[in-house]
Amino acid sequence: MVLLATGVALATGNAEAQPLSAQDSDPAVMGWMQGFPPPEDKIITQPESVYFSFPRLRWSVCHLREFLPTEEISRGLNAPVPLTYPSPVEFADLRAGIDGLTFVPMGQDQPMTWEASLYANYTDGILVLHKGRVIYERYFGCLTEDGKHAAMSMTKSVTGLLAEILVAEGTLDDSRLVRDLIPEVAGSAFGSATVRQVMDMTTGVRFSEDYADPAADIWSYSAAASPFPKPEGQDGPDGYWEYLAQVQPEGRHGEAFHYRTINSDMLGWIVSRVSGQSVTALASARLWRPMGAEQDAYQTVDGKGVPFAGGGLNLGLRDLARLGLLVLDEGMINGRRLFPAEVIQRIRAGGDPTKFSGYPTIPNGSYKSQWWVFHDDHGAFAARGVHGQTIYVDPAADMVIARFASFPTASNSGIDPTSLPAYRALADYVMKQN
Amino acid sequence: MVLLATGVALATGNAEAQPLSAQDSDPAVMGWMQGFPPPEDKIITQPESVYFSFPRLRWSVCHLREFLPTEEISRGLNAPVPLTYPSPVEFADLRAGIDGLTFVPMGQDQPMTWEASLYANYTDGILVLHKGRVIYERYFGCLTEDGKHAAMSMTKSVTGLLAEILVAEGTLDDSRLVRDLIPEVAGSAFGSATVRQVMDMTTGVRFSEDYADPAADIWSYSAAASPFPKPEGQDGPDGYWEYLAQVQPEGRHGEAFHYRTINSDMLGWIVSRVSGQSVTALASARLWRPMGAEQDAYQTVDGKGVPFAGGGLNLGLRDLARLGLLVLDEGMINGRRLFPAEVIQRIRAGGDPTKFSGYPTIPNGSYKSQWWVFHDDHGAFAARGVHGQTIYVDPAADMVIARFASFPTASNSGIDPTSLPAYRALADYVMKQN
Repeated sequence: MVLLATGVALATGNAEAQPLSAQDSDPAVMGWMQGFPPPEDKIITQPESVYFSFPRLRWSVCHLREFLPTEEISRGLNAPVPLTYPSPVEFADLRAGIDGLTFVPMGQDQPMTWEASLYANYTDGILVLHKGRVIYERYFGCLTEDGKHAAMSMTKSVTGLLAEILVAEGTLDDSRLVRDLIPEVAGSAFGSATVRQVMDMTTGVRFSEDYADPAADIWSYSAAASPFPKPEGQDGPDGYWEYLAQVQPEGRHGEAFHYRTINSDMLGWIVSRVSGQSVTALASARLWRPMGAEQDAYQTVDGKGVPFAGGGLNLGLRDLARLGLLVLDEGMINGRRLFPAEVIQRIRAGGDPTKFSGYPTIPNGSYKSQWWVFHDDHGAFAARGVHGQTIYVDPAADMVIARFASFPTASNSGIDPTSLPAYRALADYVMKQN
Repeated sequence: MVLLATGVALATGNAEAQPLSAQDSDPAVMGWMQGFPPPEDKIITQPESVYFSFPRLRWSVCHLREFLPTEEISRGLNAPVPLTYPSPVEFADLRAGIDGLTFVPMGQDQPMTWEASLYANYTDGILVLHKGRVIYERYFGCLTEDGKHAAMSMTKSVTGLLAEILVAEGTLDDSRLVRDLIPEVAGSAFGSATVRQVMDMTTGVRFSEDYADPAADIWSYSAAASPFPKPEGQDGPDGYWEYLAQVQPEGRHGEAFHYRTINSDMLGWIVSRVSGQSVTALASARLWRPMGAEQDAYQTVDGKGVPFAGGGLNLGLRDLARLGLLVLDEGMINGRRLFPAEVIQRIRAGGDPTKFSGYPTIPNGSYKSQWWVFHDDHGAFAARGVHGQTIYVDPAADMVIARFASFPTASNSGIDPTSLPAYRALADYVMKQN
């Protein structure tokens, strides 16, 4: 299951050399799951190596609850608070202007249009807010305005946001050792790390994702995370938290940023222990309900009902945009303050760039509280998930971009070249408009 | 999985002779799933024989999605249409009056109060509508106003309602043979039945639920229905529909009513084939969206994504009441007609009582289009599910009762004695009030 989050390898499936184009791999074109029943070869089923391989994943990113047990993140019962839209005429004008924008992808010398980039990135849905107003919104592939999409590792950013809220409110002390809050991990490498190191992923913990090695940690994590009845004789930890209690050290805490999903699940455990709520219940109470979300969200769970804090979130595009707007506006939404502004100020200040390396498309970046910070002149920062998921927040441009995608390969290194320069071009464009 | 619907045996677990009382088995009192993590003996996990045994089932009826893959029944994105409530003062008066009502349970001679009956029945939520207004609403156990609860076999009644809508609109001809609509079942006992016989469960099909017999059909149905990765070497049908294609005959079609869940799944298949929509999509389009539902609902699925049309529905109490109101008012809700009145007129006319037997608590009843008809002087009819789920519609009293429960044993024969007389007493009471 954990593969969904780290998503490093198996998900590439049929995506060698020449994957099908976005248009050709559109789930409707492929004919997945159409008919009652669909033809045998159009039915998408377990296991994950099937349903989450390209091109099937282009359907499955909108249908994860049909494969896995999940917990609801309730929006409550009130009427949704609609996003603000221009008139239909202005909206169409805005779209035409944006679709025709050009930018030069990283590592290339020919310009590409904004609209072409959506196909290059296998975009499933994209919504742009500028000065609090929706200026662009389109759906592709499996996604519709009332559908939901896998957030993948953007889940981490929600977990991190909840943690920062608890820090700002004094419920969580980020300077404490993890073992003081969670004695169960005293014997794990996590025990001697600080909460802050977990939040910023600078812990020294071993987590090998060498898929060629049958003893790699990723396999035992995946087995621990499985929500299905355990196979006879399966040994090893059962559930995310049992796994975390036996993680071995590797390197020293605080030395460097290492992107390891187990930090996010450790953080989810910490958040639940100190708040007395599951991350799903807390996300509902602190984010979904008060922000006027228009859909419930959901999160996949392990066999003991623990939500996957590192990658299990699924939500609607407009609610993803609401989260972005809330973050851009430092805790304000619909005229109401949901948490102190310092929560976002701390996140967007970023971490220590000298501890950050290995991401050629984010040369000057850092990772802070489970958010990616670009340290550019716009103060941009982002939630990011494999296969192209993002909330891109540009404070200088007063702009948020929410995007879901189903790029054939997992790593954002293949997606950023036609995304990050497009986002910057759009920011410059909207700043020139007024 | 199918045990959830037929619910005939295993679900009794610890519920011998003296089950815990409703108060003592309250999930909060039991301490299920409290803490991060909960104590080992308070964690509820797979398999179903664990999570759906009493008293654990009192927690699990509100959390089925945490154990099983599911499909959403979307309410859409509009604001919910609120139910109509009296003023708080009048509402409290109404409650006091109803709580103190007395009735004599079947087979007893001492009266019981309405309020006592709620505990006798392990009620999780109950809402009463009279003349279109909520006159009573209470939550117990695991359920809250923004939570969802298993509908169990009330799912069948939603499937049946959708089928009757398609009949009324001319999309489905109930006189046709099933094999003419679904050629895949030509070799199954279902093939030679009419659609109407499937709707009314008068088919002659073999479906043994003798849990002591390892060769009983219930086991292969349960294996077929499982959404989990198939165990190595598992033979037999995969999914509800493959199962239905190989059902053997027993008795003659049309001869007698036999309550067998496989009829409901056969009907779900027929509904999807002729409408071109899954039962979840159709329920969303024809019921949840237009009735102004305040929550999405969901339905469990098999390993091929087919919703469990015989028992997989989960929904909120107020939305259950909205369904009841829609049925009571013959297709009208919020001033809008959702389907022709004849749909409900046909259901509540009932089936042939001479073909109906084996239900001592419903002595003069019949089963029509997946609804139970009492053939009493109030014209009452109901959706019913094991462990005490019901929509009770009393046209003479202009009253709907929506109730969720988690009675220790599955069969309604243990629940009806303190429910049906209470409902009738309430009907008589509200009719006297004006």
